[in-house]
Amino acid sequence: MTKRLVAAAATVLAVAASQTAAAQQPASLVLLPKPRTVQLAPGAAYPVHSGLTVALAGARSARMQAALLRALKRMEDTTGLPMPRAIGSATSGNLTLNVAADGEPVQGIEEDESYRLAVTAAGVTLTAPTTVGAIHGLESLVQLLQATPQGYVLPLVSIDDSPRFRWRGLMIDCGRHFEPLDVLKRNIDAMAAVKLNVFHWHLTEDQGFRIESKLYPKLTELGSDGKFYTQDDARELVRYARERGIRVVPEFEMPGHSAAWLVAYPELNSGTAPDGIRREFGVSDVALDPTREATYQFLTRFLTEMSGIFPDAYIHIGGDETPAPDWKKNPRIISFMQAHNLHDNEALQAYFNTRILAILTKLHRRMVGWDEIFNPALPKDVVVQSWRGEASLAKGAQQGYQGVLSAPYYLDGMRPAGVHYLADPVPPDTTLTPEQQKLILGGEVCMWAEHLDQRTIDSRIWPRTAAIAERFWSAQDVRDVDDMYRRLQPVSLELESLGVKHLSSEDAGLRSLADSTQIDALRTFAQAFEPVSFSERYQQQHTSQLTPLTGFVDAVVPDPPIKHRLALAMDAVLAAPASAESAASYAMLRDFFHQTSATAPAVQKMIVQEPRLQPVESRTTQLDPLCQLALQALALLQADKKATPEWRANAGTLLAEANKSSGIVRFTFMEPLTKLVQAVR
Amino acid sequence: MTKRLVAAAATVLAVAASQTAAAQQPASLVLLPKPRTVQLAPGAAYPVHSGLTVALAGARSARMQAALLRALKRMEDTTGLPMPRAIGSATSGNLTLNVAADGEPVQGIEEDESYRLAVTAAGVTLTAPTTVGAIHGLESLVQLLQATPQGYVLPLVSIDDSPRFRWRGLMIDCGRHFEPLDVLKRNIDAMAAVKLNVFHWHLTEDQGFRIESKLYPKLTELGSDGKFYTQDDARELVRYARERGIRVVPEFEMPGHSAAWLVAYPELNSGTAPDGIRREFGVSDVALDPTREATYQFLTRFLTEMSGIFPDAYIHIGGDETPAPDWKKNPRIISFMQAHNLHDNEALQAYFNTRILAILTKLHRRMVGWDEIFNPALPKDVVVQSWRGEASLAKGAQQGYQGVLSAPYYLDGMRPAGVHYLADPVPPDTTLTPEQQKLILGGEVCMWAEHLDQRTIDSRIWPRTAAIAERFWSAQDVRDVDDMYRRLQPVSLELESLGVKHLSSEDAGLRSLADSTQIDALRTFAQAFEPVSFSERYQQQHTSQLTPLTGFVDAVVPDPPIKHRLALAMDAVLAAPASAESAASYAMLRDFFHQTSATAPAVQKMIVQEPRLQPVESRTTQLDPLCQLALQALALLQADKKATPEWRANAGTLLAEANKSSGIVRFTFMEPLTKLVQAVR
Repeated sequence: MTKRLVAAAATVLAVAASQTAAAQQPASLVLLPKPRTVQLAPGAAYPVHSGLTVALAGARSARMQAALLRALKRMEDTTGLPMPRAIGSATSGNLTLNVAADGEPVQGIEEDESYRLAVTAAGVTLTAPTTVGAIHGLESLVQLLQATPQGYVLPLVSIDDSPRFRWRGLMIDCGRHFEPLDVLKRNIDAMAAVKLNVFHWHLTEDQGFRIESKLYPKLTELGSDGKFYTQDDARELVRYARERGIRVVPEFEMPGHSAAWLVAYPELNSGTAPDGIRREFGVSDVALDPTREATYQFLTRFLTEMSGIFPDAYIHIGGDETPAPDWKKNPRIISFMQAHNLHDNEALQAYFNTRILAILTKLHRRMVGWDEIFNPALPKDVVVQSWRGEASLAKGAQQGYQGVLSAPYYLDGMRPAGVHYLADPVPPDTTLTPEQQKLILGGEVCMWAEHLDQRTIDSRIWPRTAAIAERFWSAQDVRDVDDMYRRLQPVSLELESLGVKHLSSEDAGLRSLADSTQIDALRTFAQAFEPVSFSERYQQQHTSQLTPLTGFVDAVVPDPPIKHRLALAMDAVLAAPASAESAASYAMLRDFFHQTSATAPAVQKMIVQEPRLQPVESRTTQLDPLCQLALQALALLQADKKATPEWRANAGTLLAEANKSSGIVRFTFMEPLTKLVQAVR
Repeated sequence: MTKRLVAAAATVLAVAASQTAAAQQPASLVLLPKPRTVQLAPGAAYPVHSGLTVALAGARSARMQAALLRALKRMEDTTGLPMPRAIGSATSGNLTLNVAADGEPVQGIEEDESYRLAVTAAGVTLTAPTTVGAIHGLESLVQLLQATPQGYVLPLVSIDDSPRFRWRGLMIDCGRHFEPLDVLKRNIDAMAAVKLNVFHWHLTEDQGFRIESKLYPKLTELGSDGKFYTQDDARELVRYARERGIRVVPEFEMPGHSAAWLVAYPELNSGTAPDGIRREFGVSDVALDPTREATYQFLTRFLTEMSGIFPDAYIHIGGDETPAPDWKKNPRIISFMQAHNLHDNEALQAYFNTRILAILTKLHRRMVGWDEIFNPALPKDVVVQSWRGEASLAKGAQQGYQGVLSAPYYLDGMRPAGVHYLADPVPPDTTLTPEQQKLILGGEVCMWAEHLDQRTIDSRIWPRTAAIAERFWSAQDVRDVDDMYRRLQPVSLELESLGVKHLSSEDAGLRSLADSTQIDALRTFAQAFEPVSFSERYQQQHTSQLTPLTGFVDAVVPDPPIKHRLALAMDAVLAAPASAESAASYAMLRDFFHQTSATAPAVQKMIVQEPRLQPVESRTTQLDPLCQLALQALALLQADKKATPEWRANAGTLLAEANKSSGIVRFTFMEPLTKLVQAVR
């Protein structure tokens, strides 16, 4: 039932740029991660037009066709030009894909992910040995699209690409806070956009058991607050990820981090069973009992059930942070340890891991665990995920263990993308031999979830994870931080188009705090702040799983785009303080500090009215003096004037105060401001 | 695996406002829809605190408990104070629910939806005869929350509430553009927030068949581009809606709007079968063949299958817009009509409807259809949904047919909330008798989907539908448009907190168009625009299902908040042009026109670079002269000066040009600006 329209005759859709028209050459590419080799043909470009023909030669799997249609839809959305909605049977077109084979039925760690992409005046050719490679190639194709006054174009390029590391992961902790399936799906989409290939699904925690077991239904009945993934959900996510060239490695934490198991099945406990899901954060004392055969019978059945849902060759058993004081107290456990010549908790956990390994081996699965599982008692086909750091990872490799680096990629440290970006699983100064280096499978970004929920998770993960994705994919010597930030912005926008909410969540949070759609002042104010790290927040504000996450700290985002822009401008000013060339940078900095300082009165009014804003009051008071300090320092520097001792003393006091913990947020501009004050004579 | 934290001892969470502290009385309530009676006790309020105890007395259905927990979570998010995560067995608490019964196993049209809500110094009591009534009461409770400098409070009120109409619906067209399940879920959440109770799911269209049939799988295999709801999806949505007090009425369009049926099963066709899903919009000529028994056998099986998925007492069969020229051409159909004494297409369609009605009656379902099904041949238990208008609806009621009004609630007309708001299913000047008035079940908002997709749908539906929801729920004499707009803003924010994207989608669209996160100028510019109506767009730009929906027109929103604010300010200025009391309104208007006009140069630069912005170029050129005109008119008016004839002529030309169709968008300020120019001497 629609409008009284006369059915319009089908008209040919307008072609925005004729195929033969000369098109402008775009200024610079925004490929991220950077391909292995890119050859750019100067002077011309291929104009994207609405009559584009598409051909899929070679292997025509449903997965490949769906990926191609998704890429075409994104090109359509970006260009505003209709693209084909179905893949015909033509053998060549303006866009031709040649895919040799669909690849393994279950994507493997040795899957060939390479591709070649050529844009010529005649059109686009994408060649890949597998569907996964072609999927990566399509992402590069979408990134090549550039707007010009004459319409959208593709620069004439020849790309030959393959990843540096085989394991390029993102872990999401769905235990401490549950994330709905659609949140995970949009994050999978974003992962695919930057060519990550492992979704590590942290499914169990002291704070929640999130995966349905039909054999042990109490695990979610009693251990999840009703927030869990059904087996159908999990199968759907595995399917969704595979369609995008991403493996799903599930993690079931054992023997520690297991309060939610033990609430449901207290008979597995080493001592006193918890009386409910753990609400507090931090390491808990509870642990599965590694000395009873019933434990292994339970885990055999459980892991067998899970292996029917998760086809990946790897299963993660956690294994970290198990102080397990009960193991030293429970007489039965003590005598078991004596009988088996196990001298300490570490030895008992190694025994446990050996037993679990045997179960997994029978299920044709390889075992992954955190640093703590690393023990000479275990065979060499175990993979160690290092949260303790490069040294720990290297030590494992020296002893012949495969490893995945995670320590420098903890997003809840709220560090800037540039810092994560430079941390390398195999750094230039590595002491590992080439053979040992091969044991480093790659890296994994970790998103722990104490302080996030479905509203804020995206802004904690993106776009910073895109920078890390380049580290995992691109050559070791791709290390230009400024160039990374230049490319990160358009990628961030593309991620938003894919459905990730990292850019819109901040305003949504601010609107809620302001109780108004008019948030100009609060938005400008908020640009001056970012959340403190997990541990700093935890020290300032006692939080638990029950803490609401709708404060100012939750709305603002780590490493906001303004932060790097301020740093760049300050560097330009400091490099040539008296030069006319610095005028634009001076102006940018002055504007920022002027505008930010001007918001304080309006925000102070809001703080009085809204209890959730009150923690930030201390920071609001500090803001104006800091902005004035910055403006004074800029004036002194530009005029090459000397500061008075009083000014310098006052500056020191202000900076010291501003660096102290307060309001659970920190200023985004402390680093450039400190440099500026130091630079004043 | 998380930080090396020593487990912190559980500390009692800070209580923001002690229960006994005197709390400020909030200024005014923002209940929407307005309850039947509200008694406000002045001078005090109940302070919300983190130790709130909750009791659920009477019927303790899982549905009621889940609804209560959802309401508590929202109170927690708003106040920043932890709320209970489980419902204990206490018989009284600070918040006590008394629910007499869970209600019908399938929510019915006669379900008692009333509730009483009392906030006293001792706490909150919510009493309702059914779970559905209590669910509505919880929405009022959440709306009562108010921030004060002393913390969040609930005003002391006594509310006695029940709806005016039994049928308060929202229809979403998922045929022309598919909407993912999570989009529908968040819209169901928003419906519940404003006490709507019918989700009318438009599942089939010429452009797509969106519901899986296991008996006739080709319907979606060939008729959906792979975009459809599985039966599990549909059952899940029905469950989700029921949990929120909302019925789901499915619509299967027949005999017209049926190209997607006929692509899959051409044997049902009256003439030539379509060779694919229809991509063009407007009324199509295809129709099911009402003269073959095979058609009724097919529909019997199909509707039987669907009745197993959709438990609601009503099934919608569409029935509109069936020109069906084949019925006048096909010799077999012509002879059938002669044999059955059916003189025209209308009579043949009435015959068809009678047959379908018999099928539905056997399935214990009642039939709903659009105006066109209205025919004296049909019995009186058929419900007519009127898209043709109040007169058509009234005519039906006069003949004894039940009806639901939709004509004034077509959201794709892009009219302001205030216009929709005043349209009443039973207006004050109705000529219907009280008995006939009872046949008007209520109204339904219609969201047709030619020009929207999952990114833009929310902003087309919300917050305007909230205003209409008040029309369906509240008393006939609740008609204060300004007061409605006052309350619409906080409700709009609450909808965003529930997950609807209507506020964030505009910025997301603008970022994509600007290819930048820095959109201050474009955002200010965009405030001056709103999308034109469906039909005006369709006339300016030939669109089809294949048209990308990522233009400027798609980013901007209908009836943006600034529009009513401008109108209010202009009314204030015009009411007292020379009074000092108008100073703030003058300032607001000047700021708006100054700031808007200042954005033109930056936006013109963007337009050159971004092909998708180019349609709006003509409007950009008009903007600055219009803003200057407004500023001049304000100056003349305030100074009580007379305009020159040249100025007036020029003003007339500018306004006339601005009122012409261009750029698929219109200015938000034409009405106040026209009034202003007319007011100048």
